[in-house]
Amino acid sequence: MTAADETLDVALQSWVDDANAPGTDFPIQNLPFGVFRHDFEERPRVGIAIGAHVLDCMAAVRAGVFDALSPPVRDALQSWSLNALMGLGRDDARTVRHAASRLLRADSDEGRSARTMRDVLLVRMDRVGMLVPAEIGDYTDFYASVFHATNVGSMFRPDNPLLPNYKYVPIGYHGRASSVVASGAPVRRPRGQRRPDPNAPPVYGPSAGLDYELELGAWLGGDSAIGDTVPIARAEDRLFGLSLLNDWSARDLQSWEYQPLGPFLAKNFLTTVSPWIVTLDALAPFRVPAFERPAGDPAPLPYLNDAADQARGGFDVTLAVHLASAQMREQGIAPLRLSTGTFRQMYWTFAQMIAHHASGGCNLRAGDLLGSGTVSGPDKGSRGCLLELTWRGAEPITLPTGETRAFLADGDEVTMNGWCARDGAARIGFGDCRGIVRAAN
Amino acid sequence: MTAADETLDVALQSWVDDANAPGTDFPIQNLPFGVFRHDFEERPRVGIAIGAHVLDCMAAVRAGVFDALSPPVRDALQSWSLNALMGLGRDDARTVRHAASRLLRADSDEGRSARTMRDVLLVRMDRVGMLVPAEIGDYTDFYASVFHATNVGSMFRPDNPLLPNYKYVPIGYHGRASSVVASGAPVRRPRGQRRPDPNAPPVYGPSAGLDYELELGAWLGGDSAIGDTVPIARAEDRLFGLSLLNDWSARDLQSWEYQPLGPFLAKNFLTTVSPWIVTLDALAPFRVPAFERPAGDPAPLPYLNDAADQARGGFDVTLAVHLASAQMREQGIAPLRLSTGTFRQMYWTFAQMIAHHASGGCNLRAGDLLGSGTVSGPDKGSRGCLLELTWRGAEPITLPTGETRAFLADGDEVTMNGWCARDGAARIGFGDCRGIVRAAN
Repeated sequence: MTAADETLDVALQSWVDDANAPGTDFPIQNLPFGVFRHDFEERPRVGIAIGAHVLDCMAAVRAGVFDALSPPVRDALQSWSLNALMGLGRDDARTVRHAASRLLRADSDEGRSARTMRDVLLVRMDRVGMLVPAEIGDYTDFYASVFHATNVGSMFRPDNPLLPNYKYVPIGYHGRASSVVASGAPVRRPRGQRRPDPNAPPVYGPSAGLDYELELGAWLGGDSAIGDTVPIARAEDRLFGLSLLNDWSARDLQSWEYQPLGPFLAKNFLTTVSPWIVTLDALAPFRVPAFERPAGDPAPLPYLNDAADQARGGFDVTLAVHLASAQMREQGIAPLRLSTGTFRQMYWTFAQMIAHHASGGCNLRAGDLLGSGTVSGPDKGSRGCLLELTWRGAEPITLPTGETRAFLADGDEVTMNGWCARDGAARIGFGDCRGIVRAAN
Repeated sequence: MTAADETLDVALQSWVDDANAPGTDFPIQNLPFGVFRHDFEERPRVGIAIGAHVLDCMAAVRAGVFDALSPPVRDALQSWSLNALMGLGRDDARTVRHAASRLLRADSDEGRSARTMRDVLLVRMDRVGMLVPAEIGDYTDFYASVFHATNVGSMFRPDNPLLPNYKYVPIGYHGRASSVVASGAPVRRPRGQRRPDPNAPPVYGPSAGLDYELELGAWLGGDSAIGDTVPIARAEDRLFGLSLLNDWSARDLQSWEYQPLGPFLAKNFLTTVSPWIVTLDALAPFRVPAFERPAGDPAPLPYLNDAADQARGGFDVTLAVHLASAQMREQGIAPLRLSTGTFRQMYWTFAQMIAHHASGGCNLRAGDLLGSGTVSGPDKGSRGCLLELTWRGAEPITLPTGETRAFLADGDEVTMNGWCARDGAARIGFGDCRGIVRAAN
């Protein structure tokens, strides 16, 4: 897939007018996959975002407008999650992208015909609920920003901020699949053990250090067997697409529990994803070289080192976090942007994370989710969590209302956005990844 | 459920003769649940172990001998995994236990009738393949033996063997669900990063520190929602049953990768479970008080402290590990017993692990699997992994062939067994948890 592909033509317009609006996340060049549910129907359906609408894939198959797709692909589009399409893999998903593009463009025969079936094929995005797009077999969270790792490390281990394995190992750990939710789901403040007074026993109660972590989520396609590895040169074939991911974290629970086996309850109460999976085809114009390692850093070991991945393994995605307190929303004050970062600065590529994950024979399944780890850059304005932004609470943030925040308060709404933009290419957006903090039970 | 329940009567005999043999793991008082597959059939079936046979639950439902069970229970028994029965919960599973007991006992009308249908209802265990008994949504591994934690800690942190959180927090971490396999599946030696020379860069290659970890696995029933907790007084209701679990570990990978986020590739290449889930009803005669904390240890925090759990939260299960090298098997030499431990000595009960796991609002689903952590006792003979037994290789084990082992060699077969035995109660066994190490790919 190259930028020359007609589905990426910047001049392409859709007969769905709102897909042509400047600044939309979902122009016809994007066409991300998701799973939605009608109010009147229990069963979820596969959809494709177009402007402020969703193309209902089941309706499209039933209406015969996807007849050119292969029977397994049509079956997958009538499933209630994306696992079946992910299992078929990226080549088959690309056939859907091409068919949907022809169907939705303003200047094609298919488009002119589809326009007459508008009420059958399209549903307004604000009329449906979006779900987690796949049944997640396993969720793994990485730690791929060296700036995040260095910042956090310097708080917890001032004498030893970056551990000796960091530049060799794409550090990751297993997360909780059951508590991954879609954007908009409430965020219940967790209770847990923390030790506010280091000279007294710990106490169990509501976390006083609730934080977000700005990440990209990578959704895997295909399947590999137990005992098989995924060579780095083929690792990106397993990357079905990307979404936003908020790895909600309770910092006080984390610092007390995390040794020696890693974060557990500090993370597993909730993880929020944006519900639209942006495909690598849509992201093709925004591929960039992998992060350039500073002079003196070791080269990746051979099993993580691939020339093509080094040349084009990065994604030029801009990411932003906004906060709106309950008071701000009541007073009609716009959300405050807390940070803006770029995925270009990640130390490890997704292909490296995938190859590493499978390098010992761990099987990876369609629908598995990888988190990138917090996306932070070298500047304070690009730090992807409050722990870093407020330096563990030492430098609180002041909101437009005069309220201050070291960590999240009940009622706070956190919204993450991501987009790709450059001259000569259509803007590709990720939609919202949003959640409002509720008081502990 | 009390020991007075007729299904636990020590005098009870089955018309399945091999279930009455002394030393069988599966007398009529046990009746564990599992999932098996006939050679000639792709679809797995739910079964109940009885002696050297399996009661085919689908056949039993179809033959009408389970007509007294409720329709949802009969449906669950015709499913291809135990998730449906686990979702219904322990009370419903108990109705199956009682029906199976009546059906299989020698002295009941149901038993006399069932005996005439022997060829329909029973299949020989050695004629079927046993599978992982549930689709595991999430797998969590704990660290509940204070003896194991102290031994391992003293190797990795001699100055600080037991971390300050250990006696407050049932330490756990998320494991990999996709690579949990049933007893007998091959164990491919993983490759990975290790750093044999601390003054040189790490290398990627076959692990030179392959180890087993002897654990009990706890299979969960019921469902709780995101944001809900599971109070300690009701936590054991979520415990559907127990099996054996081997948390295969690559120690050289582990020591290099585990900081700061915990074990990852050192563990996720494989986890083996014994395929039969022994119910808490069968284990009722072997319930014992929770481990008595040494004087000076803190009491569990209130959310982990329940009088009934302290009085009866333990399980008197004896656990053993045997090793047979390829050379030993060729020469017909019996496996060498490496250790014998007891689950009585675990610092945390399963109810405490469950209550802790949900204490921040993490949802637990039917079919979730918890590992107890390595079961080690205070004596060298009760250490549950080679890391402890050979003290990180410093004290190798000599096999009957004269071979020595610091860690596992290719061709080694590790077999774990577990059983409960006392006067006045039938012996309850867990079956084998077995695997042979294969050379790295």
